[in-house]
Amino acid sequence: MPIKCSRCGSADGEIYIDYIRQYLCIECFNKFFEGRVKKTIDKYRMLSRGDYVAVGLSGGKDSAALLTVLKKLYPDKKYIAIHLHHGIYEYSEDSYVKARELAESLDVEFHVFRYEDELGVTIPDIKATRYGRKICSTCGFIRRWALAKASRMLGVDILATGHNLDDTLEVMLSSFISGDYESIYRLRPVLPPLPPNNYWKVKPLINTPEYEVLLYVSFNRIPIKSLNCPFGDDARSIRRKEILRIWSEREPMVKFQLFSSFTKKFIPLLDKVYNEDHGEVRICRLCGGPSLSDICSTCRKIQYVKKVGVRG
Amino acid sequence: MPIKCSRCGSADGEIYIDYIRQYLCIECFNKFFEGRVKKTIDKYRMLSRGDYVAVGLSGGKDSAALLTVLKKLYPDKKYIAIHLHHGIYEYSEDSYVKARELAESLDVEFHVFRYEDELGVTIPDIKATRYGRKICSTCGFIRRWALAKASRMLGVDILATGHNLDDTLEVMLSSFISGDYESIYRLRPVLPPLPPNNYWKVKPLINTPEYEVLLYVSFNRIPIKSLNCPFGDDARSIRRKEILRIWSEREPMVKFQLFSSFTKKFIPLLDKVYNEDHGEVRICRLCGGPSLSDICSTCRKIQYVKKVGVRG
Repeated sequence: MPIKCSRCGSADGEIYIDYIRQYLCIECFNKFFEGRVKKTIDKYRMLSRGDYVAVGLSGGKDSAALLTVLKKLYPDKKYIAIHLHHGIYEYSEDSYVKARELAESLDVEFHVFRYEDELGVTIPDIKATRYGRKICSTCGFIRRWALAKASRMLGVDILATGHNLDDTLEVMLSSFISGDYESIYRLRPVLPPLPPNNYWKVKPLINTPEYEVLLYVSFNRIPIKSLNCPFGDDARSIRRKEILRIWSEREPMVKFQLFSSFTKKFIPLLDKVYNEDHGEVRICRLCGGPSLSDICSTCRKIQYVKKVGVRG
Repeated sequence: MPIKCSRCGSADGEIYIDYIRQYLCIECFNKFFEGRVKKTIDKYRMLSRGDYVAVGLSGGKDSAALLTVLKKLYPDKKYIAIHLHHGIYEYSEDSYVKARELAESLDVEFHVFRYEDELGVTIPDIKATRYGRKICSTCGFIRRWALAKASRMLGVDILATGHNLDDTLEVMLSSFISGDYESIYRLRPVLPPLPPNNYWKVKPLINTPEYEVLLYVSFNRIPIKSLNCPFGDDARSIRRKEILRIWSEREPMVKFQLFSSFTKKFIPLLDKVYNEDHGEVRICRLCGGPSLSDICSTCRKIQYVKKVGVRG
């Protein structure tokens, strides 16, 4: 016998959401999913910072869901999808094709930031150097740097990224263990502009569980990449997300409790210790981004990779 | 074929310690176990605060191991075992008998603090009131209060308790989730006297895994209680210890990493926010302990239980 939707009573209650103990049909799930994103955007005033919104569109499920929901909920904003092309063979081509397909189907301008052209090196080039052993974390630095550079060039008011609840909690846990509270502080739902950057960073999916993003993308047939990165995923990150999964099987509310404690208690605690005074920040003379010295640390990494001359 | 001890080469390497990847015989395990306790005591100067040392001796494994190790490593201190008799039927009798047996065998003075006499009510009396629903946490408050009262009466310099690594991390995790940073701050290895209390609180087993305490007690045939509390254990605490267990099966070092991050990073962060100024603390006119008002919160609880008159 089919299970009824706990909300509309239709016969297709096929999605069970354990922390609210409800079976939802696809339509009610979509409403539930989008409703939470809207509430989060409104609560943290994510889109009231301007009208020109960039969305980092990787080709993966999170940013694909994000762009779809934003365009649906706030159709009057001006969007641009920024796709970072890493140059990782078929993997990057697949990601690029799917991201472009989605942007086109949503009638959103599509901007490609190609590492080969913009940096002069690709991720495989970096993989071949001493940064190769920690390629996932190096790739993360460069991704942040590239999104910042593209956002500056495009002059957007807001940069929205697809970080979901599990991403956020995993970084929180790992940073807590290593005592890296600055990284935790950067996990806030909204980050103000860091001069010379001029845009706000916002994370509308920050309290959406990863599993639900996957459901949303599947049920709504949103195009996403079908290949996995050949350089693998960050093993520690996967292990810690697995711990969060096991934990929330036993305590369905725990992820939300952790998130709530993070925003309501831990961030205010860190606010007392860190101040937002960026007086010391300079401008990198290569990329024009914020830097602690003449050349920022990412540009220095890129210079090094060029110098060791993998590409001749 | 028997497994060799990784340290002495004997044929009885029957205890596997995963985070050091060694098989140990009982003798080498004892050295390993006691060595860490000694290092912790020395590092935090736990016993340099005075010569008269009280040990909270519950009849359970942790405090039994603690008293045994202290007496062995630092035989020249003057020890007194404080046993809190909760009045929980056979359970308390069993705990009392085992605690007394251990104290006598170690030639340590044994002091019984009997709730029936000292409070006028027992834990079963409290269980029958509105505090009964959260009896484990209420029992915890009263235990802390009773140990403080006994320590004041006895005029000890130091109160040592058996909190192990898993206890500490479980409270840390739960307090972090509820944003209760004051409770986390109290988890420090050493707590200075809170006037009018005059003793230091120290936790020599704070970085000893619970499982190893159990092994130490078993292998050394240290007498401990054989009954479980009829009021059960705190379900949430058990669940979260289980998560820590699963986690450390996958990452054997994680408990130590959490502890190290806690002492080296989180406590210094909290130090900046909390100050140790107890200027506001008054003296409870009933128990003589520290209080925020005329009568401390624990004495008020006890008064309430007496008033509702379970015992007539």
